[in-house]
Amino acid sequence: MTFDLSSWLPTAQARVERLLADRMQVIALRTPERLAESMRYSLLDGGKRLRPVLCLAFADALGGGGTMAEDGACAVECIHTYSLIHDDLPSMDDDDLRRGRPTNHKVYGEALAILAGDALSTDAFSILSSGPDAESTARARMTATLALAAGAGGMVGGQVLDIADDRAATKDYLVRLHRMKTGALIKAACRLGVLAAGGSAAALEAAERYGEDLGLAFQIADDVLDATSSADALGKPAGADAAAGRFTFPAVVGLEASRQLAHELVARAKDSVRVVEPIAGPLAALAEYSVERTR
Amino acid sequence: MTFDLSSWLPTAQARVERLLADRMQVIALRTPERLAESMRYSLLDGGKRLRPVLCLAFADALGGGGTMAEDGACAVECIHTYSLIHDDLPSMDDDDLRRGRPTNHKVYGEALAILAGDALSTDAFSILSSGPDAESTARARMTATLALAAGAGGMVGGQVLDIADDRAATKDYLVRLHRMKTGALIKAACRLGVLAAGGSAAALEAAERYGEDLGLAFQIADDVLDATSSADALGKPAGADAAAGRFTFPAVVGLEASRQLAHELVARAKDSVRVVEPIAGPLAALAEYSVERTR
Repeated sequence: MTFDLSSWLPTAQARVERLLADRMQVIALRTPERLAESMRYSLLDGGKRLRPVLCLAFADALGGGGTMAEDGACAVECIHTYSLIHDDLPSMDDDDLRRGRPTNHKVYGEALAILAGDALSTDAFSILSSGPDAESTARARMTATLALAAGAGGMVGGQVLDIADDRAATKDYLVRLHRMKTGALIKAACRLGVLAAGGSAAALEAAERYGEDLGLAFQIADDVLDATSSADALGKPAGADAAAGRFTFPAVVGLEASRQLAHELVARAKDSVRVVEPIAGPLAALAEYSVERTR
Repeated sequence: MTFDLSSWLPTAQARVERLLADRMQVIALRTPERLAESMRYSLLDGGKRLRPVLCLAFADALGGGGTMAEDGACAVECIHTYSLIHDDLPSMDDDDLRRGRPTNHKVYGEALAILAGDALSTDAFSILSSGPDAESTARARMTATLALAAGAGGMVGGQVLDIADDRAATKDYLVRLHRMKTGALIKAACRLGVLAAGGSAAALEAAERYGEDLGLAFQIADDVLDATSSADALGKPAGADAAAGRFTFPAVVGLEASRQLAHELVARAKDSVRVVEPIAGPLAALAEYSVERTR
């Protein structure tokens, strides 16, 4: 029996869109309009929503996490969105297109793009620390999870490794880089769902292993996709990574070894998650989905 | 009887320096060295430490807040430091000097400066959500306080109002701008100290009124200082605000009216704070100190 991700995923994504629009509406009430507009432009642009979907899927697998899981989902997507806005800046990757549309700084200018990122980064924590149960133990643990994953020892640190002049062209360096840059936040998304649902220590551990493997697999798949797809499929110039001299899994270990590694990681992720859901559930299917475009 | 701020303040500042160095050391353990260096450069540069000193002073006035107050003090200074790094960027105020030293991006380049700011912003919340009492109600309220003050409806929103093309040259606009850009975080610093010390609702309200008035007074004093001091005293070019066409209280309401307003606000702040400490305590003296350079 296979899980029908193609009908489940659009529903989950639509739920995330609705939640993000709701949270953004609350934030906008206290925000200068131009800033709210720039935040909305990047936050509500219909991305894949992998991280919030993972958060909600873990919570649902454990009986649901209510508003707390929804806040976790929105908070992790705010962090992800801010990181994209800042990564695209002229002094970083200098990208003009993102998901087929002009990047935030192309539309709003560099200053407002930086500030929209800053606001999304901070208001992720105002979302997480709000609600009638704002003072619960679970929310406190969720805050710690998100802050550690997104900060200097996680996502931001990974971006620093990515732009470093003295990058080592080795698999070890690449793995460390992506475990921090992409993996930490994906792992955090999974943890947030378990924490919101009050999952057991075993469930938390399963979520961590799953998130860690899936996070790395997803990044490898992204690199493979960039190396092999057309601009139309990507919504950005194909081969941009290679052209920019960026440092990817296919460049370091080769295309076939990259595909192989991604599929091994996915198999392991699916294995980890059997503790929290039946075999034919969305989490196993999401793990497959994260690399399927690279087949 | 007057409180002797000149002996109290250096001790309080030295305590903050020590705490910040400690927290930074913990963060550095999980951080790529180049990033940690850039964070340290701006965080440990011996600023006035007004915000953390206020946080600790409120906690001490209420019987002390232990590690929680110290974490609050460090977190608020991390947020303040990140805002300075980002405000100094070429696409924002484009400043080369800060506290008499080259700005972060002048030393580490724009990309790393943005990322050091991002990391300090996020790790403020990892500091706040750490510790043996990480899951206490007080820490959850501190997280909400800091996130709301620093985000789109607070500090970041204020910076957007400051760089907006359509700024209105009115006192109302300036007051709104600075209540968000500077005031919100100063007010949060005061709240953090009360929350950490488990202060009463009355103490919390007093801290808010004090912080709000002192925050605005401090900003007005800064504007007055820029308009009247020499480069040596400022550690940056004097009259830089006016030269950059920046929009200040002296420019909008005049120098004398600015001084007057600052001193009225300080008097009111001192009055608010009688609920939480004896008249001759550090909080009243700190309120005076925040504008004394403008006499």
